[in-house]
Parts: sequence; structure tokens; C-alpha cells
Amino acid sequence: MLPVALDAMGGDKAPEEIVAGAHRAVAELGVPVLLVGRTEVLAPLAGDLEIVPASEVIAMDADPASSVRRMKDSSLVRAAEAVRDGRASAMVSAGNTGATMASALLRMGRIKGVSRPAIATPIPVPGSTPTVLLDAGANAECQPDLLLQFAQMGAVFARERYGLEAPRVGLLSIGEEPTKGTPLVKEAHALLAGSDALVAAGGRFIGNVEGRDVMTDEVDVVVTDGFTGNVVLKTLEGGMRALVGAIFEAFGSTPETQAASEVLVPALLPLYEAVDPDNTGGAMLLGVDGLCCISHGSSSATAIVNAVRVAGELHHAGIVDRLRAAVAPS
Amino acid sequence: MLPVALDAMGGDKAPEEIVAGAHRAVAELGVPVLLVGRTEVLAPLAGDLEIVPASEVIAMDADPASSVRRMKDSSLVRAAEAVRDGRASAMVSAGNTGATMASALLRMGRIKGVSRPAIATPIPVPGSTPTVLLDAGANAECQPDLLLQFAQMGAVFARERYGLEAPRVGLLSIGEEPTKGTPLVKEAHALLAGSDALVAAGGRFIGNVEGRDVMTDEVDVVVTDGFTGNVVLKTLEGGMRALVGAIFEAFGSTPETQAASEVLVPALLPLYEAVDPDNTGGAMLLGVDGLCCISHGSSSATAIVNAVRVAGELHHAGIVDRLRAAVAPS
Repeated sequence: MLPVALDAMGGDKAPEEIVAGAHRAVAELGVPVLLVGRTEVLAPLAGDLEIVPASEVIAMDADPASSVRRMKDSSLVRAAEAVRDGRASAMVSAGNTGATMASALLRMGRIKGVSRPAIATPIPVPGSTPTVLLDAGANAECQPDLLLQFAQMGAVFARERYGLEAPRVGLLSIGEEPTKGTPLVKEAHALLAGSDALVAAGGRFIGNVEGRDVMTDEVDVVVTDGFTGNVVLKTLEGGMRALVGAIFEAFGSTPETQAASEVLVPALLPLYEAVDPDNTGGAMLLGVDGLCCISHGSSSATAIVNAVRVAGELHHAGIVDRLRAAVAPS
Repeated sequence: MLPVALDAMGGDKAPEEIVAGAHRAVAELGVPVLLVGRTEVLAPLAGDLEIVPASEVIAMDADPASSVRRMKDSSLVRAAEAVRDGRASAMVSAGNTGATMASALLRMGRIKGVSRPAIATPIPVPGSTPTVLLDAGANAECQPDLLLQFAQMGAVFARERYGLEAPRVGLLSIGEEPTKGTPLVKEAHALLAGSDALVAAGGRFIGNVEGRDVMTDEVDVVVTDGFTGNVVLKTLEGGMRALVGAIFEAFGSTPETQAASEVLVPALLPLYEAVDPDNTGGAMLLGVDGLCCISHGSSSATAIVNAVRVAGELHHAGIVDRLRAAVAPS
């Protein structure tokens, strides 16, 4: 089995938590992992794991495009090259998101027929499979035909990742009627509604959906431009954090509530695990000619284990070939 | 004191809950209320309240513009006319949002200098004053100068409504740097950063904010186009509902958790009340030449009481004159 190339230098908790996740992934999943990064930093932590040397690190807040062009021996660029060269099945990074995208795009290239890769992010839905949101931030500006391609790629991803027979694809708008929204949304609606290409990709267009549908079982794939998608993702993150924080504060307010909340922990744990971003396996950059998994900047070892697991499963499912078939120019 | 004109026919729970709210508003707040709607429907419910007759009702899902043009004797149009004619201090409706906006715009007109009115929606923030989000859906497409005007109006609203000295105004984007986002956002950033008009309106521009900041105390007014704003609002509604629903399900899962959750109710109640849309007083349409309060379609009697309270307070604060002064053409 081909190993997963893990950017051991990327993320708020790198390298310790990232490498700890690698060790756990090997032990728990049996998926081999290559650690990509500075040898002198990684050697004391690596144990049996193979190190792919990379002398540079692109900072979390560095300018993505120029950093990737300039830092050819960075862990991100070397991880992408490992996939390109067939040494690894996938790359995983919790580092600079923009630089991860740029590395994957420049080194792996695009799948033939793909105009622009998109970030597909699983949004947890209590009691159901996650909703796949794309584009979650790769393309701030989009044309209607781009949204059609996102829909195709999202449908393939939802099928392979969550085993859905015919994923329901919704277009994010501000009303159910096809006449609602911006010109982009109205034109995309017309394209999606009549699209044989989406049906061929396994998707089923259910029309416009609204923000309130994202965290429900009403839709499997939500398609939008990268600006709106990124706002939705971060709005939910912030909203969940605010609400959960306030609930925990109420739980701890008196000794009585503290005791009562301890009784509730086992019942709340599955929900907590369902919405914990460490458990979603991270976002995928769809449309590049190889597997690229983008983990949250705050990824823990558990997040890395899940990202490696998902990357391994998607590689096994041959998702890049399935995406290639879905978007092949006719 | 001038009465508030209440559209007694609008909303999912009209007319019973709406009229019940009117009675409570009069009794609890001492704010007089005019019930606008069908006399034969309202007479049995009205008691001492004055009825402004209106024979037509614009349905919740009717096309706003054409309905308002066609149905001149509708409760929404008559409520807006009561404000225009000086018979009422404000209109309040839980009915068709688009038709509420169209009625207010067509009958009251715009404040001189205002290009387009915007919906300002308070987003609850646990432990702090709400964040004012605008535009929450009136204008799906916006130009940069429109966002500057929203910022001015939002600053005036946050000052008068929440007593903030110099409200912090943030521009919603997908990164803190001024270079992040769509062309609209980048141009708006440049306008806002150098704006004397915003300072004159009492606002303080703090740069770009992200979705994750909306439900925090990091910002007081979040400015965005009506498409993104509406998506944010509904995404938060859906996300909160999903999370709270799943928590309640966990609470009720066994007799033990049920008993424990009852201990927690008093501690959770303030949070529940803080995020309950019935308590925010609804959204305001800012920029029309009169007060127009847009309540949630599912408004209960309590929501109506709060909307009438806020409408009365804003009338007392002279917010329309303050908005007029803030956006006056120089």
C-alpha cells in the first residue's frame, strides 16, 4: 500500500501532534505514512517512520502563491511532489491552506477538464451523514459553469465518501424559487437544472437550498462560490463555538449544575464527537490530479489520524479516476 | 404617544398570536397599538384596540412587488400608510418580508440620500450585546458605495439600539487582510477605511471580519451584501436549531439524563432566552422614511411584544432623524 505524505511541519500544533498522529495512524489503521519536513526536527520524533527531507517551512500566514514559487524545498511542495511522483497516495497538511492548494495545483496539476479545483468541506449533521459544502474557499469569484463542475465533483465525492447512491445536490441561495439570488445563482440554477453531466456524475439536483438547510438531512451536497462557502463554514464554526461555550459555562455555574452535567456527558458525547472538526477527516481539494487533504490549522493527533484514514479510503476508492471520468471533456 | 401600526394578518400565527401580542404590548409596555387588517376577522379579538380596516392580505409566499402594487387595501400597505400619514410611529409585521419592504419603500419613500434600504438583523451573542448584521437580504446585489451606506446606518442603529458609544464596524470577508475577498469587498474596504462619513455616523471601522466573528464580542456591526447576509442569518438559524435539537434529544435519552437536564434548565434559561429570535425584537428596515420592523414569520405573541417595544424605543430615540443626519448628501 502506498504511503500518505504528511506535511509534518504544518499546523498550529506541528510537529509534535502531527507526528503523534502519524504514529497512531500507522498503528491503528495500518496505513503507512511519510513524514515530510526538516530532518533535524523530525528525526528525534520519527521512530520507524520514513522522513522525506524538506528544509523549508511555509508559515501559516505567508502569502501562498509567492511562498510556493519561492520555497521549492518546503514541506508542502515536497509532499505534493511525492504524490505527483507516485511515491505517495495522498498528501495531508494542517498548514497554510492557500499554500497547500497552490502546492497541489502547481505540482500535481489539474484533472483534465477541470477549470478550477474546489475545497469540499464536510459539515457535520447530527444523526446523519455530513453535508458536503463546496467551494469552501478556493475560488472567491466564480462563473456559473464553475458551479456546475463543483456540483459534479461534489456528487462524486459524496458518493465515494459517504456511500450515497444518488446524492442530492442543492444550490445555495436566498429562497427556494429559481428566480431568487444573484445573477450567478440564477444562471447556475438554469445550468444545473438541465444538466446531463450532473446526472452522469451520479448527482440529483434538488434546486435551491438556503443557509438553514446546510446542517440538516435535506441535502447532501451544497454548491456555492468560494466566498459564500467560506463565510458559511466560518459562520457555523463561530456559531457552534459560541453556543457550546455558553452551554459549558451554564453547566459549570453551580456545584448542582456541575453534578448534573456530569450525568449528561455520556449522552452528549456522540454529539460532541459528531460536530468536532477533528473527526471529519478534513476538507479535500477536488480537481487536482492527486489526493490533497486539507486539515484544520488547529488539528490534533486525532485529526491527523482521521485525515490519513479518509485519504487512504479515498485512494482505495479511486476517487481521482472517478472525478476524471465525471468531468471528462465530451 | 403615537401608536404602533401592527399588521395583524401577517405571520404564520396570525391573527391570534399577533393580536395577543398587541394586547400584551399595551398592558405591559403602555405602548398603544393599531390593529391593521380585516375588520370581520379582528373585531372578535380586538377588545379595546382600534382597528384600521384593510380588506386584503398578502400571502406569505406571494410575489412581493406585484402584490403590493395590486393589493392597495392590504394590511401591509395600510400599515405603511399609517406611518406615512403620521397616524402611527412605526409599522410592525411578521408577514411576507419582501412585501413588507416593498410596502414601506413605496408608501414611506426613502430617506433623502439613501440609495437602497437595508435589513438590519440583530444576531444574539451570549454574554454581550447582539451583533447588527446588514444587509440581511434586501439587496442581493450591491455596489461598494452601498456597503458604505449600510455601515453608516448600522452604526447609527447600534448606537441608538444598544447604547454603544462608537460601534465597531467590520466588513465581512474571507480573511483579515484588505486584499482578501471579492472585488466588491476589496473596493468596499478601501471606501470604509478612509471614510469620514462613517466616523461622522459614529462608527469605527475595524477592517475585515470573518464568519466566525459574527457571534462574538469582536464586532458590533457586520456589513455585507444582502445575499451573503441572508445566507449567514439562515445558516446560523439552521445551525443553532440543529445543535439545540440534538442536545435536547440527548437530554431526553434516559430517565437519568432527563432528571439531570431538569437541574440544568434554570442555568440554561438565560442562554435560551438570549438566542431565542422571539426576544431580539426583529429586524429593522433601515433607510426608509419611517420605522419598519420586520418580525420573524413564526413570531409568537412574545415576539410581537418585543417588536412593539423596540419600535417604540427607536421612535422615542428619533432614529429616522438620526439616520437622515448620518446619510445626508453633503
